[in-house]
Order: sequence, then C-alpha cells, then structure tokens
Amino acid sequence: MSEPKTAGDQQPGADQRLAKGARSRASIARHAADVASVEGLTGVSIGRLATDLGVSKSGIATLFGSKESLQLAAIKVAREVFTDAVVTPSMSEPAGLPRLRAVVERWFGQVAAPAFPGGCFRVATIAEFDSRPGPLRDAIAADSRDFATFLSNEIRLAQEQGHLTGRNADVIAFELGAVIAAAHNAQQMGDEWGVATARSIVDHLLSD
Amino acid sequence: MSEPKTAGDQQPGADQRLAKGARSRASIARHAADVASVEGLTGVSIGRLATDLGVSKSGIATLFGSKESLQLAAIKVAREVFTDAVVTPSMSEPAGLPRLRAVVERWFGQVAAPAFPGGCFRVATIAEFDSRPGPLRDAIAADSRDFATFLSNEIRLAQEQGHLTGRNADVIAFELGAVIAAAHNAQQMGDEWGVATARSIVDHLLSD
Repeated sequence: MSEPKTAGDQQPGADQRLAKGARSRASIARHAADVASVEGLTGVSIGRLATDLGVSKSGIATLFGSKESLQLAAIKVAREVFTDAVVTPSMSEPAGLPRLRAVVERWFGQVAAPAFPGGCFRVATIAEFDSRPGPLRDAIAADSRDFATFLSNEIRLAQEQGHLTGRNADVIAFELGAVIAAAHNAQQMGDEWGVATARSIVDHLLSD
Repeated sequence: MSEPKTAGDQQPGADQRLAKGARSRASIARHAADVASVEGLTGVSIGRLATDLGVSKSGIATLFGSKESLQLAAIKVAREVFTDAVVTPSMSEPAGLPRLRAVVERWFGQVAAPAFPGGCFRVATIAEFDSRPGPLRDAIAADSRDFATFLSNEIRLAQEQGHLTGRNADVIAFELGAVIAAAHNAQQMGDEWGVATARSIVDHLLSD
C-alpha cells in the first residue's frame, strides 16, 4: 500500500524465481550428499538425481552445470550440515576444554545418529577419493584440514588455560580424529564394543 | 621314463586345465582387488574385468559364477596379500613385543607403499560397505575382526611377558588400528606430517 518500494517489489517474478532456484539447488545438493554417503560420490550423477527427485535432467543441469559441480555442491552441503550439527552449537560454550568437550560430544552424536543415511560423509568420501587426485579430492582434503585446524586451535586454547598440557595440540587433534573415525566404522559395522572403546580412549585423551 | 605313474600322469589334460583355471581365477581375483582398491567393490564387475584383461565375459562368468562371487574373491585375495605382506613374515620374530613391533613395522610399510594401487583395501572397503548389509559387508567385517583378534592376542602375549601392561589388550589393538588407518588416509592425501604423527603415537603406544 503505502510502504516504500524496494528493488524486490519492482521485480517480484525474478526474485521469486531466484529464491525458488536457490531452494531447488539446496535440496538437490542435500540429496546428492545423502546418496554419496551411501554409494559414494561416484554414485552421484545428474541422471540419478533427476530420477530420485522426479525432476528433469535439464533442470538439474541448468542449476549445476556439470556432474562435478553437483558433486562439489554435495561436499559443500555435507560440510555445512556437520558444522551446523557439531561446531556451531558448541560455540556457546566457554572457549577451551568446555567447548572442546562439547564438540567431541556432538561429534560422537554424529557417530551414534549420523545426519546422512550412509553415516559420516567425510569418512566415506576420504576413503573413496584418497587415490583420485582432482578438484573433488582437493575439496574433501580442504574440509578435513579446516576441521583439524579448528580442533587444534581449541586444544591450544585449552592448553593456554592449563589443560591437556604435555602433548602437541596438533597430535591430540590427529588422534581424536583417528579414534572417532574408527568409532564411526565400528558403529556402522554394528560393533558396540568398538564405539564404547573409542569413547573411553577419547575421554582419556581429554582428561586433565 | 621309468618314473612311477601318478594320478596326474593318467589325466594330464584335465589336470592342466584345472591348474590353468586356478591360475586364471587367481589372476582375475587379484585384478578385481586392484580395481576395488581404487574404485570400490561396486566398480568390480564381470564386464569391467573382461575388458581390462582382454578375456571373454563368459570365461569369467564360468570361473566365478556371479558378480558377488567375484567381489568376494577380491576380498579373499586382498586378505591373503595383507597376511603375506604383514603377518606371515613377522611370525619368525619371537612372540610378544618383538613380533608385535615387526607386525606394526610391516603394517606401516603397507601405508608407505601399499600392495594395491588405491591403497589399503580394508580401509577402502569398510568405508564403502559399512552401510550396506549383506555377504560382502560380512566378509569385510570378518577380515577386520580376525586381524584385530590376532593383534589382541599378540598384545596379550607381550603383556604376559611384562610389557604394555596397565591397559586392556583389545583397547590397545583398537587404538593401533585407528591410528594406522588415519596414517593411511594421511599418506594417500599427501599429508606427510600426519603419517609421522601417527608413527609417533604408535611408538608411544608400544613403548614399555
């Protein structure tokens, strides 16, 4: 009525189309990540996604351009899902040991009830692409490296506060990652003893 | 000439055919394991192997029966290759800590220079099949379990001799497996720091 006009008001059709495109893109990328967690990134193709989602191949091709872009979008969405589930909610804890323990708790939450149907996206795709150089491996490696750096920084903060001293922060981060990945494998293979064992090793690593 | 006849001498044609079939079977299974280490067990098919090896699909189908039998044969041959490279040559060391260290040394040898083009067969296939129940997952799980049991038994022998005491043998075996798998991932991703870090963690685990 009397509200000031905005750029959006002037082109409602274009805006709505852009918003709809962004929503479609996000939901397709998320489904691609779900498929990749079970069947690997090589199982993700424009044709496969079109069939699964009941949309046209040309529609997906318009949104993503190529199979590789679709696979890269799956890696990106998986990274966001992990960050939203594990990292972001832990940031409200005090920096140092409390935040580190919150991260590890939520990380084990992803072991027990993974956000993806095939379990941890990172574990699945590292094993799949570790021997295949290229943009997909680079994106997977960058994601792993970034999370390891985040962990190391949190461990260093804890050390500055007098906890977990006596060992290199990067080494503790590496060992945490190794043991929680093994917990994930154990969980997926139905090995409850392995999950409990990993938990006890991690509790010991983070005890002070 | 005057040598006594054997059953083989009486049916040379049949024996030679059987021996040739066994050799063909072994070489096809080995190639299947090579392919699976890079592209996953789902990349192993009778058609793919026939093309790679320049033999007929019907020939491979006669030797293996089904795609699943071919995949199971790949798991079996990978297990034999690992046993031959890591376990068997270590058995000449004295039981306990010396043998355990020999196993771990050869295991790291497989990290640095894997017997398969895609790296560790076990790491690759566990990540691929952990969320797909069935005979392939069962075979992969049995292989992992058997090696973990072997490791635990060797650790227990070392403990009976007064080494590595104070921790449960199964827990040490789990942690060794977790850290060496992470070393393998690091090696495959070109992360030399990760491999050296894994080595230092394992040396610490086995120090006594």
